[in-house]
Amino acid sequence: MRVLILGGDGYLGWPTAMYLSARGHEVAVVDNMARRGYDNELGAESLVPIASLQERVAIWEAVTGYKIAAHIGDICDYTFFEPVVQDVQPEAIIHYGEQRAAPYSMIDRRHAVYTQTNNVAGTLNVLYAIADHVPACHLIKLGTMGEYGTPNIDIEEGYITITHKGRTDTLPYPKMPGSWYHASKVHDSVNIHFACRIWGLRATDLNQGVVYGVDTEEIRLDERLRTRFDYDGVFGTVLNRFLVQAVAEVPLTVYGEGGQTRGFLDIRDTLACVELAMLNPAGPGEFRVFNQFTEQFSVLELARAVEETGRELGLDVQINHLPNPRVEKEAHYYNAVNTSLLSLGLKPHYLNDTLLESVIHVVQRYRHLIKPHLIMPQVNWRETGNPLVKKETAAD
Amino acid sequence: MRVLILGGDGYLGWPTAMYLSARGHEVAVVDNMARRGYDNELGAESLVPIASLQERVAIWEAVTGYKIAAHIGDICDYTFFEPVVQDVQPEAIIHYGEQRAAPYSMIDRRHAVYTQTNNVAGTLNVLYAIADHVPACHLIKLGTMGEYGTPNIDIEEGYITITHKGRTDTLPYPKMPGSWYHASKVHDSVNIHFACRIWGLRATDLNQGVVYGVDTEEIRLDERLRTRFDYDGVFGTVLNRFLVQAVAEVPLTVYGEGGQTRGFLDIRDTLACVELAMLNPAGPGEFRVFNQFTEQFSVLELARAVEETGRELGLDVQINHLPNPRVEKEAHYYNAVNTSLLSLGLKPHYLNDTLLESVIHVVQRYRHLIKPHLIMPQVNWRETGNPLVKKETAAD
Repeated sequence: MRVLILGGDGYLGWPTAMYLSARGHEVAVVDNMARRGYDNELGAESLVPIASLQERVAIWEAVTGYKIAAHIGDICDYTFFEPVVQDVQPEAIIHYGEQRAAPYSMIDRRHAVYTQTNNVAGTLNVLYAIADHVPACHLIKLGTMGEYGTPNIDIEEGYITITHKGRTDTLPYPKMPGSWYHASKVHDSVNIHFACRIWGLRATDLNQGVVYGVDTEEIRLDERLRTRFDYDGVFGTVLNRFLVQAVAEVPLTVYGEGGQTRGFLDIRDTLACVELAMLNPAGPGEFRVFNQFTEQFSVLELARAVEETGRELGLDVQINHLPNPRVEKEAHYYNAVNTSLLSLGLKPHYLNDTLLESVIHVVQRYRHLIKPHLIMPQVNWRETGNPLVKKETAAD
Repeated sequence: MRVLILGGDGYLGWPTAMYLSARGHEVAVVDNMARRGYDNELGAESLVPIASLQERVAIWEAVTGYKIAAHIGDICDYTFFEPVVQDVQPEAIIHYGEQRAAPYSMIDRRHAVYTQTNNVAGTLNVLYAIADHVPACHLIKLGTMGEYGTPNIDIEEGYITITHKGRTDTLPYPKMPGSWYHASKVHDSVNIHFACRIWGLRATDLNQGVVYGVDTEEIRLDERLRTRFDYDGVFGTVLNRFLVQAVAEVPLTVYGEGGQTRGFLDIRDTLACVELAMLNPAGPGEFRVFNQFTEQFSVLELARAVEETGRELGLDVQINHLPNPRVEKEAHYYNAVNTSLLSLGLKPHYLNDTLLESVIHVVQRYRHLIKPHLIMPQVNWRETGNPLVKKETAAD
């Protein structure tokens, strides 16, 4: 299939591009290098050195013979993006092209406004470009399990059937996002659903859990094909961050009690899920929602698993409970449905010692590059980030 | 109370400013004149001539002795807005300051992106300004009943208690907005709710029905205090538009069968509701939602009422069923709760012949200014507005 990947230079975008290219799909990617720009802004960087996108596609072609077309520009700039869609004529668009870190969105007002306008306007552009130029194209949009929050009832896949005062309807599942970033994904879901209703577009919203891992089959072909690996307090997600902390022998930063339960998945399963969605497209006018995770863990369970594996490898792993910089429940009910992708044929890579050890081995290779000062959380949900207004404003 | 009204030059903002000023509140208004700019863009205008905001506040002071402070600027420009909040130190902010027409948001991609980024970013600025400078200030935000869509179950006030697989929770009511504009209000609701959770802000979201009417007690003091009255296909809401059509003796434009049922209210009740919310504020951290309408009608019922009243006044009123330019159900269940504002003491002005006649009398005074070419719907939900892509893209 002809597929256009938005955010094709990112942690998941680049491995997805290689995965689909290796499977015979005709792959083009779009990226505005925003993610590398955030690194510059924050003084942070991927633990694993990464090549430029231009180098990546050249190396990929040299190693495999497959071509990936790279378009450098911003999907928020329609004068750039519209001609790309007209030129590529994609049958599927995989949309990773958003600011994706909750803490980044919570830095201050500017970052909140940037995250929401960037993500919402970019996705609106994608919807209009599809409607005008490739109306049969299947939009595969990365959402997040964090859109749902932690309701006291089971989390369904996008919709819920409600019986109320003797009547019944199936409606969008209520959302309670936990950051401006998560809220931006809720906004996107509302917008994409609406576009499917008015224009008959086909879309799959992949509400993804927290991804962990550093290797895919394609990355293993050549060290220069590596994808980024973040461990800093802003962009580093929890399990990857814990593994770096274990190697650096700094205490694992568990926020509060660590009872927060979330859905998780291996990076290899992200790629498989995206291809499964692509090969089994939504119908015309259908807004389909899949919950994309394979297992649920509490943060403390993950810390314990890393502690155990790290100690087996001779590392001095400690766990440190920090005051939680986020506003979230630390003890709560959590049970989310994830059957759609399994029924399409997903064969999960479950978290185990072998995976943890293999990530640790990669991290150890780059251990000399770890900057411990980047690890601690920098952003507090209870504050507005205005240096002139220092007091805490939270109710709790 | 010290109150800041955002969008204080608009159809509802200006009457609200006078209403609260007349009742002893200390009123300041903010407006960026965007609404007058849309008129310039569309070649449309208020049927009733309106004074500039600067003239309005001068006339108001001359007539009543009360001062209203006017700040001209854009809430999306934080370098303008932040100092206004710091200067005014409002105890309540009434937020009408958004692009408010569904058809305008559906004109094309640019108008969709403008509507959503303008409304979402403006409201984010309001939330940050409150959190930083007036954390006890009560935000009264105008939402819309159109956020809910037309579910097959009763519409509750913002939240619904759901029992699912043996567990129960009260969660945000599921939303199915019917335009990019309505979706922007859904986005706002998600954002405001989140700000209440993390910063303990107090907010009331007024999900308002369709407002009709032209007169308030304060407007009757002086013809130069009139608020705008729109009848064009983009900004004219349904009942006001029908009344102008009746006077112009052009057929009433009922979209499709006219079975669309919605909540409605008299402009005088909008003012009373806003003051009731202000005098009975939400608690710290509370995100309160009121459905602000007094009666439900189908569009065809309204057309019949205007037809009957118009004929009694000797007007030749016809009803014309146009192909529906919107994507919406024309026959559906609709039953929305609206008890919160009634229990705070709202005494509704129900729609009756006298009100219809009084609006018709005002419209007749300005009959010579009616431009019939503005009346027909200009914007089709099934199209993207791209002149290079003319075909209909809808599934239905």
